[in-house]
Amino acid sequence: MNLLKDINHLLPVAGIKIATAAANIRYSDRTDLALIELAAGSTTSAVFTQNAFCAAPVLVAKQHLSQSNPRYLLINAGNANAGTGQAGLDAAVACCESVAAEMGCDTNQVLPFSTGVIGENLPVDKINNVVADLKIDLNPHHWHAAANAIMTTDTVPKGISCQVSIANQVVTITGIAKGVGMIRPDMATMLAYITTDAKIEKVLLDSCLEKTVAQSFNRITVDGDTSTNDACVLVATGQSKVIISELNRTEFQQALDKVCEALAKALVRDGEGATKLITINVTGAQNTNESDRVAYTVAHSPLVKTAFFASDPNWGRILAAVGRAGVKDLDINKLKIFLGDLCIVENGARSESYREELGQKVMKETEISIDIQLNRGQASSKIWTCDFSYDYVKINAEYRS
Amino acid sequence: MNLLKDINHLLPVAGIKIATAAANIRYSDRTDLALIELAAGSTTSAVFTQNAFCAAPVLVAKQHLSQSNPRYLLINAGNANAGTGQAGLDAAVACCESVAAEMGCDTNQVLPFSTGVIGENLPVDKINNVVADLKIDLNPHHWHAAANAIMTTDTVPKGISCQVSIANQVVTITGIAKGVGMIRPDMATMLAYITTDAKIEKVLLDSCLEKTVAQSFNRITVDGDTSTNDACVLVATGQSKVIISELNRTEFQQALDKVCEALAKALVRDGEGATKLITINVTGAQNTNESDRVAYTVAHSPLVKTAFFASDPNWGRILAAVGRAGVKDLDINKLKIFLGDLCIVENGARSESYREELGQKVMKETEISIDIQLNRGQASSKIWTCDFSYDYVKINAEYRS
Repeated sequence: MNLLKDINHLLPVAGIKIATAAANIRYSDRTDLALIELAAGSTTSAVFTQNAFCAAPVLVAKQHLSQSNPRYLLINAGNANAGTGQAGLDAAVACCESVAAEMGCDTNQVLPFSTGVIGENLPVDKINNVVADLKIDLNPHHWHAAANAIMTTDTVPKGISCQVSIANQVVTITGIAKGVGMIRPDMATMLAYITTDAKIEKVLLDSCLEKTVAQSFNRITVDGDTSTNDACVLVATGQSKVIISELNRTEFQQALDKVCEALAKALVRDGEGATKLITINVTGAQNTNESDRVAYTVAHSPLVKTAFFASDPNWGRILAAVGRAGVKDLDINKLKIFLGDLCIVENGARSESYREELGQKVMKETEISIDIQLNRGQASSKIWTCDFSYDYVKINAEYRS
Repeated sequence: MNLLKDINHLLPVAGIKIATAAANIRYSDRTDLALIELAAGSTTSAVFTQNAFCAAPVLVAKQHLSQSNPRYLLINAGNANAGTGQAGLDAAVACCESVAAEMGCDTNQVLPFSTGVIGENLPVDKINNVVADLKIDLNPHHWHAAANAIMTTDTVPKGISCQVSIANQVVTITGIAKGVGMIRPDMATMLAYITTDAKIEKVLLDSCLEKTVAQSFNRITVDGDTSTNDACVLVATGQSKVIISELNRTEFQQALDKVCEALAKALVRDGEGATKLITINVTGAQNTNESDRVAYTVAHSPLVKTAFFASDPNWGRILAAVGRAGVKDLDINKLKIFLGDLCIVENGARSESYREELGQKVMKETEISIDIQLNRGQASSKIWTCDFSYDYVKINAEYRS
């Protein structure tokens, strides 16, 4: 398996073409619209936010996906078209109609996606004005441009390619993602598009996506806020002629998992104001509900997050967060907490071997792991999060995102 | 009922004397130790943190309370004596022994309380050194001094007195509290001491405390982090000779509730970095579990909290938080959200009558209410929280609390 993380050299996927345009939806002097064309015969799976207030494009994309084999994914940045009621639904459909007319397909073969500020009407005309330009721009090599066009408060574009040999043939996977705030995905992240030239039936593709999302995009959190617009799309064009079935699924799934984990971690690393990527690994729980609760309670604690920002090995805050996670009959004397390889808590107190300067050294790294061993069962959870800085407040107080 | 909020003129309570001292536990140039003497014959109730990692003084105070009628409450600031294992328990008991020897009571008639940094050993000697000074300082009028001595990152001391006429006699209640970070009390807040000269049997006193805490200290949140050291103590000295029974409980309970609500709101108003007091009122839920979830999800959303700091009527963030609160089958078209008296969300979108300048006006106030009407049942929840500012990050990143 070969992972390629250079955003400037993402691999084209046979059957996929991409275009971008500057529609001036909210930003000027940059692109803010991307169109992904899927070759006829592609299969498409998608998962969406579980937020009860899901945005208009989410509702329309779900409906279109249930009715057709998609040929186009239309993504705009700067406006989420969320909390916009019937007018929002009409706007999302109007954009699909415009693309369908230009490209010559059915309206329900276009899936719309929006990301940006909530509660403002989507300027449909600005999008329609550039649909013809999008058609001209379609090209298999425009991944980098698309990763840029879909950004909002992201500071860097995020994408990855992977090549894996299956049945002595090369399968390519390329994906892009965006989203660095209002990030606690619940079935999917803000926006992610992963494509492959393998041939995979819809039922199996759905299963592959569900499995990979559960271990990647659904395991990250920046601020605990689940977006109204989350979506993750997986497309299999089938153009490589490599057929993935239950028999050889494992190799494909492993490659897909690597791609999605890398994209998910890239989102957290670019989390609003983030300076550190923190991996939280909870083991020895009685069930995954328990290990998840501990992991997310630590990940969402503002006191833990600000201590990480300050590179302060304030292990008392981690301990207090574990203690309030609601684990029934937690025996604090059995629990151990590690910062990197350093044991910081055991026997209900600070580890006797712990030295402040050792903790300080781990905390100064930009990638830090916390291992929490509950020692009461076999279940475990791993999630990724980031620290909490002045810039998080700055970004969210000074800019309406 | 007469509420007196001037911290400089809190009313003495017959049977209560207070002393403070500077033990130099963590801070210099200030007092950091308080002793509250309860007259013989007083009854005492207390509720403590539900954090699994509860601090040594919490364990010792619980044990002593179960064994005796307390005569002294000893409170230190600057060191939480939490996460300190057996050494911490020994230290807490040693402080009680020192007070008991000086005052002439049993060790288990002293309840210890600590607040401050987690995970450092309590300097018992420093405390023992000033116990004789505490004895000399005991005085019914030292409430203000005690409210100052127990502060950590608090910026102002917090106390209130109340006089209420019951059975044609005056009953006095005076209470103090501290705690502005790691605040999401779960059965009690950081530290609060409420005393009255009414005579109340232990069983009824327990019930009064439980009821009042459920509607005051347990309804506030600064950062969602439940402390390891939370405690709330209610003492009835009986010296006024007014006997409270189930028959006249209501008048006493109402006065007690006012005192505790005022103290709880004072904690939030002084929340770390806080610039605004926000009341969140959720109505029309199917049960209180549901209304609580919505209220706390909105209260803990970093995006909502930073929008309040910025006085930005970013109602989309409130809507997104309600949507991710996990309310099953939430009908977003029935829901209404008000900012003060202003309807901001109805029919699943921004209210047609909403104008940005009206939202802006409400957001500029220092006390703001959010009303969330789910319109699917009769249950409701009211909680108090604050906004999230640069100073929260500054306080928790630059200072080890």
